Amino acid sequence: MTTQIDLPLTAIARKTRDCAQTLAVLSTEQKNQAIEAIAQALESATDEILAANAADCAAAYDKIPKPLYHRLKLDRAKLQSAIAGVRDVGKLADPVGEVQIHRQLDDSLILKRVTCPLGVLGVIFEARPDAAIQISALAIKSGNGVILKGGKEATRSCEAIVKAIHLGLSQTVISPDVVQLLTTREETLKLLQLDQFVDLIIPRGSNSFVRFVQENTHIPVLGHADGVCHLYIDRAADLSKAVAVTIDSKTQYPAACNAIETLLIHQAIAPAFLTLVAPAMQQHNVELRGDVETRKILDIAPATETDWSTEYSDLILSIKVVDSLTDAIAHINEYGSGHTDAIVTENAETADTFLAQVNATGVFHNCSTRFADGFRYGFGAEVGISTQKLPPRGPVGLEGLVTYKYKLTGEGHVVATYTGENSKLFTHKDLD
Amino acid sequence: MTTQIDLPLTAIARKTRDCAQTLAVLSTEQKNQAIEAIAQALESATDEILAANAADCAAAYDKIPKPLYHRLKLDRAKLQSAIAGVRDVGKLADPVGEVQIHRQLDDSLILKRVTCPLGVLGVIFEARPDAAIQISALAIKSGNGVILKGGKEATRSCEAIVKAIHLGLSQTVISPDVVQLLTTREETLKLLQLDQFVDLIIPRGSNSFVRFVQENTHIPVLGHADGVCHLYIDRAADLSKAVAVTIDSKTQYPAACNAIETLLIHQAIAPAFLTLVAPAMQQHNVELRGDVETRKILDIAPATETDWSTEYSDLILSIKVVDSLTDAIAHINEYGSGHTDAIVTENAETADTFLAQVNATGVFHNCSTRFADGFRYGFGAEVGISTQKLPPRGPVGLEGLVTYKYKLTGEGHVVATYTGENSKLFTHKDLD
Repeated sequence: MTTQIDLPLTAIARKTRDCAQTLAVLSTEQKNQAIEAIAQALESATDEILAANAADCAAAYDKIPKPLYHRLKLDRAKLQSAIAGVRDVGKLADPVGEVQIHRQLDDSLILKRVTCPLGVLGVIFEARPDAAIQISALAIKSGNGVILKGGKEATRSCEAIVKAIHLGLSQTVISPDVVQLLTTREETLKLLQLDQFVDLIIPRGSNSFVRFVQENTHIPVLGHADGVCHLYIDRAADLSKAVAVTIDSKTQYPAACNAIETLLIHQAIAPAFLTLVAPAMQQHNVELRGDVETRKILDIAPATETDWSTEYSDLILSIKVVDSLTDAIAHINEYGSGHTDAIVTENAETADTFLAQVNATGVFHNCSTRFADGFRYGFGAEVGISTQKLPPRGPVGLEGLVTYKYKLTGEGHVVATYTGENSKLFTHKDLD
Repeated sequence: MTTQIDLPLTAIARKTRDCAQTLAVLSTEQKNQAIEAIAQALESATDEILAANAADCAAAYDKIPKPLYHRLKLDRAKLQSAIAGVRDVGKLADPVGEVQIHRQLDDSLILKRVTCPLGVLGVIFEARPDAAIQISALAIKSGNGVILKGGKEATRSCEAIVKAIHLGLSQTVISPDVVQLLTTREETLKLLQLDQFVDLIIPRGSNSFVRFVQENTHIPVLGHADGVCHLYIDRAADLSKAVAVTIDSKTQYPAACNAIETLLIHQAIAPAFLTLVAPAMQQHNVELRGDVETRKILDIAPATETDWSTEYSDLILSIKVVDSLTDAIAHINEYGSGHTDAIVTENAETADTFLAQVNATGVFHNCSTRFADGFRYGFGAEVGISTQKLPPRGPVGLEGLVTYKYKLTGEGHVVATYTGENSKLFTHKDLD
């Protein structure tokens, strides 16, 4: 893909890539020292960062929606928590240098597959300035350079943060140029075209924003646009588990991508379950919308075709009665977004079929969809949740920021030895 | 991405996806039985397939380049070898169902990350009809449906092959619809737009063809356009190893993507090495092109800027004298295609730096670049070689045709238990 790109951004990207190359060979200790230096520099710059954020907030107040404003706003506690997060990244296991394959191909011809950094991450986020702090620490831990592009409302905050990060890095062996900040909207589109220098794009923002990014780049994107998650209550469900899991999956944090939008219920259990769950949901102020069969049991608004593919991110739940497990799976694979879907049943065979046939990164049995999360899975960090088919998918920790390379070491070995008549055989012996 | 797509192809793709879903839950034995049934059906259809191929060859003769014609032509031995290849796939380990993570999150809340099929593969190949045989077997072994699009010259051959595969599958539990064949060129572009139904595109053909595919789809592509591989002869090289590795890397099979195109030589060793390697290369009919420093030592044609980024796929070698290891690495990272690059040196530290800093899927020390191959690595099969940064990269075996999903099983567990005041802690205990 040949694209017209202004020199300055290309030059920035090239510099980031070149500096990242030296990051790739540092020891875990050197990277952890740099992460601690960043934490200290952010602490020292606390007043400056809060002042910059106050200016951002003053300029944006009344101009952006309230939820966005809350994400923009940094107070001392939020900043301290972000700095604590930086130190937590220091404690994570180093994802670089892990030997995945160690194999003798022949005497003294040794193959190793070893994890290594990707190179340069492009991270595009909306208002949230603390995202710049977290992702910079994750990038350094994984040996990657990072080009940050924050929302324009957060420009002053991001500049103050990146200034502190640079100051911290300047006291280490790592070049401050491994962390770059872009501030204009035009640069976002250009960043998406820098295939040659940027290895992974991580978008953080609304569904439509993520979709825009996915459709406008050939660089791999770590993220997901939609989170249309389902809960299926099987005919063999334990009713009390079913109610508890439904309440948690819908109401524990309705704005989360792993909250459910649609409840599917086997027709044999629908009357009993619906009369039990409806009052519970109403207690949690959940608006219910149902298909024809549901509305024969409950007096609620109708669900239309649009409802089945809508991520409400709100206290709304669409309900459909299905004839069978097969119908439930077909509905999920048709309307779902491949994020997380769960079944409640006491029948192990039914659960196995559901877990095998539902096309989603997370398939759950007798538990809330809200568990789909890198921290809850024990990854120590969550870089993003990916709904693509290829790995890394689902909640992605530091593992998603590295790749691997094959290292082959010989003593003058040539392929001609292993081909044609009297050819030698490979030993292909896995080593410890 | 909303695109205008004719109904028929979408319908075919949907059917393939739906049938592939049942493939995903089959046992290894069931898949192996299907693979054996395909092998037997191809054996029974040998005469029919060879007759169809003879008709393809007669129609294409004098109309297509000789190398393409040779790839198109199937004789009894080549077909038998392809059928033997099908049975070899039957013997490979099943890539589906491998448990990658097995972790207790809390009492009776168990997380498993388990490999599963991707869904549907789209395979686009040029003339080669035997590719249809191999990839169909690999698709079934990995639990995927496959949509094949062969070159128009091979239409009769592919039709006869797929007819036999369908006949074989019809005697098994697997629907013949998991293997589909497209035959018109227009369908290629449409296939590339079927994001919703096709999970991976595997292009097999010329560099420009692969590049075309990469630039015209949002579906992940397994493949590589260029193979501009380098060999760097360090100042601390053993000269006899250096000569042997150079000859093998360039001449053992010059049309291969893992053959070298450029030789880089440290200036301190350039006179000694060049006077040794030049006659050896001339014996192998290799045309040499050199930079200014090289031409002070050898009387050869000049290498221009274009040479450094050209994959000759032929007996031509460009040579450059560099001042240092750093220069060699910089040249490779600038002009290379990230495929495979090697160093010859007796200095272990120099080798380590080269292997760490060269951005390529394969980084080799004291051995031929020609080893970069799935069979030589011991993978049992090679689906393709990928030069992208994200895994799977390098030579990719069956592992490249599967992904994973997270399966979480509880007993009514909800997230509310683990949040807020008095929240329970996760145990995060890895299980066997």
